Amino acid sequence: MPETISFARGAPSLDIIDVEGLRGAAGRAFANDPGGLTAYGTSVGYPPLRAWIAERHGVGPECVLVTNGSMQADAFLFDALVAPGDSVIVERPTYDRTLLSLRNRGADVRMVELEPDGIDVAALERVLTAGANPTLAHIIPNFQNPAGYTLSVDKRERLLELARARGFTIFEDDPYVALRFEGQQLPSIFSMDGETVVYASSFSKTVCPGIRVGYLVGAEDMIATIAKIATSTYISPSMVSQGIVYEFCRSGALERSIEMVKTALRERAATLCAALRHELPDARFVEPQGGYFLWVELPRGTDVDALFTAAAGRGVVFVKGSEFVLEGGDSSLRLAYSGVTPAEIEEGIKRLADAYAEIEAVGAPAA
Amino acid sequence: MPETISFARGAPSLDIIDVEGLRGAAGRAFANDPGGLTAYGTSVGYPPLRAWIAERHGVGPECVLVTNGSMQADAFLFDALVAPGDSVIVERPTYDRTLLSLRNRGADVRMVELEPDGIDVAALERVLTAGANPTLAHIIPNFQNPAGYTLSVDKRERLLELARARGFTIFEDDPYVALRFEGQQLPSIFSMDGETVVYASSFSKTVCPGIRVGYLVGAEDMIATIAKIATSTYISPSMVSQGIVYEFCRSGALERSIEMVKTALRERAATLCAALRHELPDARFVEPQGGYFLWVELPRGTDVDALFTAAAGRGVVFVKGSEFVLEGGDSSLRLAYSGVTPAEIEEGIKRLADAYAEIEAVGAPAA
Repeated sequence: MPETISFARGAPSLDIIDVEGLRGAAGRAFANDPGGLTAYGTSVGYPPLRAWIAERHGVGPECVLVTNGSMQADAFLFDALVAPGDSVIVERPTYDRTLLSLRNRGADVRMVELEPDGIDVAALERVLTAGANPTLAHIIPNFQNPAGYTLSVDKRERLLELARARGFTIFEDDPYVALRFEGQQLPSIFSMDGETVVYASSFSKTVCPGIRVGYLVGAEDMIATIAKIATSTYISPSMVSQGIVYEFCRSGALERSIEMVKTALRERAATLCAALRHELPDARFVEPQGGYFLWVELPRGTDVDALFTAAAGRGVVFVKGSEFVLEGGDSSLRLAYSGVTPAEIEEGIKRLADAYAEIEAVGAPAA
Repeated sequence: MPETISFARGAPSLDIIDVEGLRGAAGRAFANDPGGLTAYGTSVGYPPLRAWIAERHGVGPECVLVTNGSMQADAFLFDALVAPGDSVIVERPTYDRTLLSLRNRGADVRMVELEPDGIDVAALERVLTAGANPTLAHIIPNFQNPAGYTLSVDKRERLLELARARGFTIFEDDPYVALRFEGQQLPSIFSMDGETVVYASSFSKTVCPGIRVGYLVGAEDMIATIAKIATSTYISPSMVSQGIVYEFCRSGALERSIEMVKTALRERAATLCAALRHELPDARFVEPQGGYFLWVELPRGTDVDALFTAAAGRGVVFVKGSEFVLEGGDSSLRLAYSGVTPAEIEEGIKRLADAYAEIEAVGAPAA
């Protein structure tokens, strides 16, 4: 069997990580602030990085908490806001780990359909009118995982109105924001209302995932509450990781890294869209304007379980759409183009199209 | 007021941290394994470090999980084993953060007196006979925090017998083990029974705290259970931090660092004991054979709250004994000598003795 081509993992390939930049940042970090890097910190994170993030978001440092990766930030926020039985709104489809994390907490997860311009706000309103009383709505506004869709400005505003009227918090989970390779940057929901919204992002997509640095931005009292939870969980996050990220950011390496990543992603997304149109014309999708993911809908009745197996047999993997919903999603799949080169994409989509032809030949009567 | 001398924090001073060694390890880590450091890892930790730890403990890598600091390891273990209402045995006194973490989980915390040779096993047996049915016993076997005491081999064996007979897990929390500066190393309880015992340690005291690398060693199924909890919490710990620790360890810097730390701690402990004997002859204590802490008992009736205030007024701080127990501890205190130089220790104990003389003069009638 040929080497497997993976469209499965939302992670960058090594060629778009600035390893030399990281190595240099590590050396400078230990040289410039040996005490700050090596001593225990506090749970709010490495102070210079905290201040740097705060400035970028136009808030005071007391509104920022820097964590070991943004999943950990999510976990702290859920610890603070989600009790068993609490209603939580999520997009349908949404990130599978968020779904699992909420279900593990006993949350009553309510999925609201995601459209190409973001969550269906009218449908959300109907859910609320029907009696849902959520504590939280989890929203991935830009280049959503798994769909790649972006929430429009109009919907950002309407969503915020609903949250204010109904008294729930919007958790704006925004790890991909810096990776826009087409179109105009949109204002964050947090920038419209820093009380109703808690914002999370990460350096996983702009520096590297293995450094595990993410963060929350929110109202001062919310951040103080979460800082207490963080203290009793781990005293402080890695000062070494955060010190390296800080040096990487302030040296300008971050901006260069983002440009390199965006250039690669633009090419990969374009290659993927072209390959799908050419090899798999049954695939319906929206061209992403940034991020890592493309969501593919195949004709209704397509057995994506069977497609997964047939594709794996040809050395190509993806994540089934059903992983990102509570039920259904049977004819959809997520393709991540962040970790594959254009040549791999072309070859991988050929294999996927072969697998599709095979299951269509076998499965036609069932469709 | 003179500069404050702190006996409060269990942390090393910067002069006993090998910053140059860390800087070199960081450079080599990025050069030798750029992919491993920068990509997402898995929740078991950075594989080469995991294997290095496993070899040191004579187990397979599947028995090891490397975390962002050992507090995080504790939290995962408690998530796996401690439900609200569960009985948990801890030493009296014990580490205040462990106490808080257990109480936050709604555990029924049962404190059993700590003697200079470790937990009072006969008292533990009485607690068990009286009907306690613990799921877990938390034990800090070497140079305990806060007492500085070490559990004897005889008591290790008796404790293990009780755990086997009563079906509870021993959580052997051992961050100070490498810092023995007097006497013979004792076998870990884990080395006597790898099924009944889960072992935790850390590189905070041998490399540096700010790197946040700790670990668990336990039975394969226990580690697998905890790895699942860790995955849904943070995907993976910092590969960068763990990669740096791995290079630090395998280059020999770890052994040199431990020698440097032990030499300093031996001198600091000796200076502290001599200063107490000279300046504060009312203080009763056991000379530590390693670690960071000395536990001081003052004559019964001494008001350590008042001593704390009087000492702070003279620029010297410590942690009150009452912080490490559920109730009582009023005439005891913890002195950490890890973060102070011998000159600071001598000056600090002079100030403490002055504060003691002041409160004795005022408080004598109440004693």
